[in-house]
Amino acid sequence: MQPSFFKPHPWLIIEEGWNPRRNRLSESIFSLGNGHMGLRGNFEEGYSGDCLQGSYLAGVYFPDPTRVGWWKNGYPEYFAKVLNGTNWIGISVEVEGEILDLNQVEVLSFSRTLNLKEGWLERKFRVRMSGGRQVEVEALRFCSITREEVGALRYRVTPLNFSGRVGLGPFLDGNVKNEDSNFDEPFWDPVHQEAEPFQALLQMRTKKTLFEICSAMHCSLESGGAIIRPLTRQELREKFAGSFFSLHLEQGQSCTLYKVVANLSSRNHPPELLAARCRQRVREAAETGFEGLLAEQREDWARKWEEMDIRIEGDLPAQQGIRFNLFQLYQTYTGKDERLNISPKGFTGEKYGGCTYWDTEAYCLPFFLGTAPPAVARNLLLYRYRQLGKAIENAGRLGFSGGAALFPMVTINGEECHNEWEITFEEIHRNGAIVYAIYNYCRYTGDLEYLEDFGLETVIAVARFWAQRVSWSDAKKAFVLLGVTGPNEYENNVQNNWYTNYIAAWCLDYACRSLNQVKAKAPAKFGALERRLKLDTGRETGQWKHIASGLYFPREEKLEIFLQQDGYLDKEQTLARDIPAEERPIHDHWSWDRILRSCFIKQADVLQGMYFFEDRFDLDTISRHFDFYEPRTVHESSLSGCVHSILASRIGNRDKAYELYLRAARLDLDDYNADTRYGLHITSMAGTWMSIVQGFAGMRVREEGISFSPFIPGNWDAYSFNLIYRDWPLNIRVDQQAVHILNRGRAAIKLHIFEEGLILGPGQMASRPFNSPVYAPEEKR
Amino acid sequence: MQPSFFKPHPWLIIEEGWNPRRNRLSESIFSLGNGHMGLRGNFEEGYSGDCLQGSYLAGVYFPDPTRVGWWKNGYPEYFAKVLNGTNWIGISVEVEGEILDLNQVEVLSFSRTLNLKEGWLERKFRVRMSGGRQVEVEALRFCSITREEVGALRYRVTPLNFSGRVGLGPFLDGNVKNEDSNFDEPFWDPVHQEAEPFQALLQMRTKKTLFEICSAMHCSLESGGAIIRPLTRQELREKFAGSFFSLHLEQGQSCTLYKVVANLSSRNHPPELLAARCRQRVREAAETGFEGLLAEQREDWARKWEEMDIRIEGDLPAQQGIRFNLFQLYQTYTGKDERLNISPKGFTGEKYGGCTYWDTEAYCLPFFLGTAPPAVARNLLLYRYRQLGKAIENAGRLGFSGGAALFPMVTINGEECHNEWEITFEEIHRNGAIVYAIYNYCRYTGDLEYLEDFGLETVIAVARFWAQRVSWSDAKKAFVLLGVTGPNEYENNVQNNWYTNYIAAWCLDYACRSLNQVKAKAPAKFGALERRLKLDTGRETGQWKHIASGLYFPREEKLEIFLQQDGYLDKEQTLARDIPAEERPIHDHWSWDRILRSCFIKQADVLQGMYFFEDRFDLDTISRHFDFYEPRTVHESSLSGCVHSILASRIGNRDKAYELYLRAARLDLDDYNADTRYGLHITSMAGTWMSIVQGFAGMRVREEGISFSPFIPGNWDAYSFNLIYRDWPLNIRVDQQAVHILNRGRAAIKLHIFEEGLILGPGQMASRPFNSPVYAPEEKR
Repeated sequence: MQPSFFKPHPWLIIEEGWNPRRNRLSESIFSLGNGHMGLRGNFEEGYSGDCLQGSYLAGVYFPDPTRVGWWKNGYPEYFAKVLNGTNWIGISVEVEGEILDLNQVEVLSFSRTLNLKEGWLERKFRVRMSGGRQVEVEALRFCSITREEVGALRYRVTPLNFSGRVGLGPFLDGNVKNEDSNFDEPFWDPVHQEAEPFQALLQMRTKKTLFEICSAMHCSLESGGAIIRPLTRQELREKFAGSFFSLHLEQGQSCTLYKVVANLSSRNHPPELLAARCRQRVREAAETGFEGLLAEQREDWARKWEEMDIRIEGDLPAQQGIRFNLFQLYQTYTGKDERLNISPKGFTGEKYGGCTYWDTEAYCLPFFLGTAPPAVARNLLLYRYRQLGKAIENAGRLGFSGGAALFPMVTINGEECHNEWEITFEEIHRNGAIVYAIYNYCRYTGDLEYLEDFGLETVIAVARFWAQRVSWSDAKKAFVLLGVTGPNEYENNVQNNWYTNYIAAWCLDYACRSLNQVKAKAPAKFGALERRLKLDTGRETGQWKHIASGLYFPREEKLEIFLQQDGYLDKEQTLARDIPAEERPIHDHWSWDRILRSCFIKQADVLQGMYFFEDRFDLDTISRHFDFYEPRTVHESSLSGCVHSILASRIGNRDKAYELYLRAARLDLDDYNADTRYGLHITSMAGTWMSIVQGFAGMRVREEGISFSPFIPGNWDAYSFNLIYRDWPLNIRVDQQAVHILNRGRAAIKLHIFEEGLILGPGQMASRPFNSPVYAPEEKR
Repeated sequence: MQPSFFKPHPWLIIEEGWNPRRNRLSESIFSLGNGHMGLRGNFEEGYSGDCLQGSYLAGVYFPDPTRVGWWKNGYPEYFAKVLNGTNWIGISVEVEGEILDLNQVEVLSFSRTLNLKEGWLERKFRVRMSGGRQVEVEALRFCSITREEVGALRYRVTPLNFSGRVGLGPFLDGNVKNEDSNFDEPFWDPVHQEAEPFQALLQMRTKKTLFEICSAMHCSLESGGAIIRPLTRQELREKFAGSFFSLHLEQGQSCTLYKVVANLSSRNHPPELLAARCRQRVREAAETGFEGLLAEQREDWARKWEEMDIRIEGDLPAQQGIRFNLFQLYQTYTGKDERLNISPKGFTGEKYGGCTYWDTEAYCLPFFLGTAPPAVARNLLLYRYRQLGKAIENAGRLGFSGGAALFPMVTINGEECHNEWEITFEEIHRNGAIVYAIYNYCRYTGDLEYLEDFGLETVIAVARFWAQRVSWSDAKKAFVLLGVTGPNEYENNVQNNWYTNYIAAWCLDYACRSLNQVKAKAPAKFGALERRLKLDTGRETGQWKHIASGLYFPREEKLEIFLQQDGYLDKEQTLARDIPAEERPIHDHWSWDRILRSCFIKQADVLQGMYFFEDRFDLDTISRHFDFYEPRTVHESSLSGCVHSILASRIGNRDKAYELYLRAARLDLDDYNADTRYGLHITSMAGTWMSIVQGFAGMRVREEGISFSPFIPGNWDAYSFNLIYRDWPLNIRVDQQAVHILNRGRAAIKLHIFEEGLILGPGQMASRPFNSPVYAPEEKR
């Protein structure tokens, strides 16, 4: 893949030319969504070439029966998967009776444009059909972020060198499958379908989970500047409803079909009202009209960009990369619904089944904290809180008791949806990330009520898990954590993964601290919780402290580094740069056992701990660990770049910081890992935001407040972004000379720039040049 | 399961009563086979209740596409599976037009008897059908060990309380499936079917592998003491051929159907001649007739029992157990075909897909060495030699080169047929067992030509594997073997499994020794091999010695024991006896991660090494390791009991030796592990032979010849067995007073009893009482 397939542009992603071979990749890139629904960049008209047709409704899943080679006790019987649902963009197109199918005609020109600023996708093409008939199509569509159940499209056909009949058939089609279905079952049962001229409705129900979804379309046709209504023929089949018509067009005369669709699910409406509400929703949208809806879309995206944009001057590829990421992130999760979460692929593919991973807590939360009101991040925490009961059941299945919780590695409904034993049972550090997110949220927002009402309960359940999961090693005279997999999934079933041990000890310690905090601040709430959880406070916290202080941390004294796990230095120590280029990524070129035995690290592991708990390590220690582990890291997880980039920024290794940032920011646009065809790396996109805000701009939130220690990559003229910190909207701008921080809020804020504390009144801006002497200490590398 | 379901009997296994719930279990127990083919104890007449219909032809397999949750590089794309083939015993039975189906009628009595001595299965039952009609059936069948392509059965029906029409329809049916098929595909395509009165033929072809199999039947009917030939109706459908007739029977008048079948496969005949040969084979058998075939069967089984019987006086359950095992072992593998091997379930079930494991080399070889001419054991070695090329390819796929071989964990055709990464890629000690078998065979038989012609080539390829598989640990200043799984599969991906490291070092050492031996004795053969393998003898053997002497062995100095793996003592040390009875087997009751983290051992691991290399450890060392590891062992592999029993015998822990023996010997009869319904534990059956011969009788073969150091369990009156050692057939009899060894051969033999060397002339017997003073030193425990 050439790295510059898409022309650099600050706001547009433009594909020029017809590339059917990379169609799946482009379908991922040109995905649209609005938090409630999403779809890949499929074609409206039928396409018989290679594509992954995919339209998804958030939270509508099916428990697909597990298929494994060899069963292990504790595996879940089902994996929940988000379903490919009704294809609501479909329009069949006929020209003089010939079906338009880009796989069957000569494509003369083809382009797709994704407008990040305004939130729409446009596609234009010219084809030569049989008899030499040339036709031009211009299609534009969007998922409304204003009305999250509404999508709309405009489809314009023009006969270029002939006059003749053009047939158009907008439809709703539920005859869809998930490619990743384990038993090739269809997941949908028909409920109801109806069609009348220019309108149709389709309602379906999932097998087993009995979710119902309903789509209704409302179309209108324009030609010669006027609305026209040719005679239609309705088509109704099982799970299919459409309306077809044809009309005579003169050479050069366009006709434009507007299709407005509402997509509702029984997650938000009673099933018996679904059809009626759907009709109503689409009627309202149709009344507003396509252009009206598009105007709303532009306005709302403009508002959102105001909150989250990062502007980079002087580096167009970096600018395009970060904006593409922010755009896709917001398309995936808007934070309105605490029952939803963020899947690593969002609505852009089937891989990972639309499930939630620890990515959300470790990589996505800071983005939502910094660019949206606290309620959004809080909803992400509540998602886990709602699933606490299932996490306790899950731990029970593995033999833990007494209210201990193990959150699943992969989930939609709180149940584990993964079955590699080394991950499902052993990658338990995820439990720590979920507690860390609570801590992180409280620290950033100052919202301690969350801790009192929901957070502490989760924290206690996780502490109880760690307290049982450790075992005492007589040999080491310490508590150990055996049989775990760290964030580095290129080594499994290790003993004493430093990161896991560290976050476990931290969780136990944080459980004691936060418990005391709540006890002191909200004794009544605490008393109720204590009773409900049958908490034996003195004994349990005593045990937690004992374990936290007695946990073992593998360490190499001569190198003065913590070891990723017991025996890590028994591995042959080579560096990632010594791997021949043609063997990268090793995941695709090496056998699994060779990867496991190598010293190579997939993503931040020890360094993930240094990132989370930066304040507990001095700069020398962080540098030493970065210098040891980063050269052994192959960054073959999309989540690897950002943490390393932030740490590199921290220790002043700016070239590395920039290199890792850029790679992460353009991961999908440039298809670095040759896997974008399966969907976009949504969760790692949040990491690129962190790389700039926490990395380049050095933003930190500590007890004493927010601080910035920025630098600017040498090839950038400037970068700037808005940030929401508690009650203060801020703007940060960094150019080659100085950092400028503007208080956009209505109250004064106390903050630090470099190490200087200052107070900024409302509307005030502080500028600090880079040659400020207080900056020097961090410059030493 | 009550432990005494089958009545103790020296030669019979008798099931009394109708137990449809344990039908799958009984089907396993009552399996028949003859090395070429085998079948479970299914019913001739149709049965709509729960059963596993299974008829198998050795070596006829299908490469079933792999199905896994998550693919790992290096996994095989297909698993070969032995196929459920033509149901050749089938007879449809109608009484006054009503189909006889034991699931649909009232069963008044039911029994099955397996005659171990004569090699046949009999089944008798009486049923009450509609209208109160009572019918008696007696069925007897066998797989001929004289003519391995022939099976025969006799099926007698008697109306007990009525006169009326009885219809009988013997058939061949290829509409069968494997229950373990990954994609529910039928594996057979029809080739040809034909039927004429009392005869039928069915030929089918496997998909992909294009094996062809052909079955032909030849029936005759007897009633009132005469052969009769009623009119028949032939039935031909795809993959089905049969001949049906009915006749009027008076009350109390029997009719007896004889069905003789030939089952041929294209492994042994050209496909185009298969049908003709099959017709010929069945004609010859039919001419001999059922009773003639049965007489041959009796004679040949008598001859075989002469070679392999172990007689136990005074302990009927033990006697029954060992004979059942020997019977099933010989039914599974007769040693005539070097392309065949022994699957853990033989022909008694689908589990393990009819594939070969390291069981053969580690557990079965000694039995065949001791009870059959050397050619049988040699064929087992040649099986692996024939697959050496594939083993080199297999190693290549994992990244090894230069002629290094990794034999698959599970195979039929030399290709790996398993895909748990922790087993497929990591349980590499199997490579050592294959070399150990060569060493063991040469030591036992003195056949050094095998080493020259085939063995050394295998030994070198395995040495080359180990030489690449080790890595240098700078931390330990030693070679290490990282990422392995030992015989204890209750812990995976460990570092420095002592057994694996030990057998690896031994292999490297043995490679040097055997290479020098061949070089000295057969320099021309060696020179040819050296050129063919591009062997850089000096350099490579130098490297092998260097690694063998520099390998790391985990050890705990205070306890003076070798550790099963790095960090084994970090685990919480509890004993198997402390596991609550209701949690045993832990494999069924604990989650997989809990098992992995526990200190509990599935089967001999360190002790497997002490067993293989007994001479390298003094008795104290063996005792110390036994006393440490056995109490931590849950014996949840059927292969666990025998090795522990032998070592317990060796160290004088006789109660333990007997307990472990008995459990292993009656594992299937008493369904100890609640899994016999999936098939019998064929390979572990060989271990029970070892428990007596090597354990109780203390038989050893060393450079200086064969020796015995017997004891006798307190509750036995005597035990005796024949043994083939090189040119000498021996008989060993042990009673409570003495051991008696008889040289049944034609030449004098030098041997040791206890530690006394003696020479036995032809026909001579030596008796040594147990109070012999030289016995005392081993008595100390």
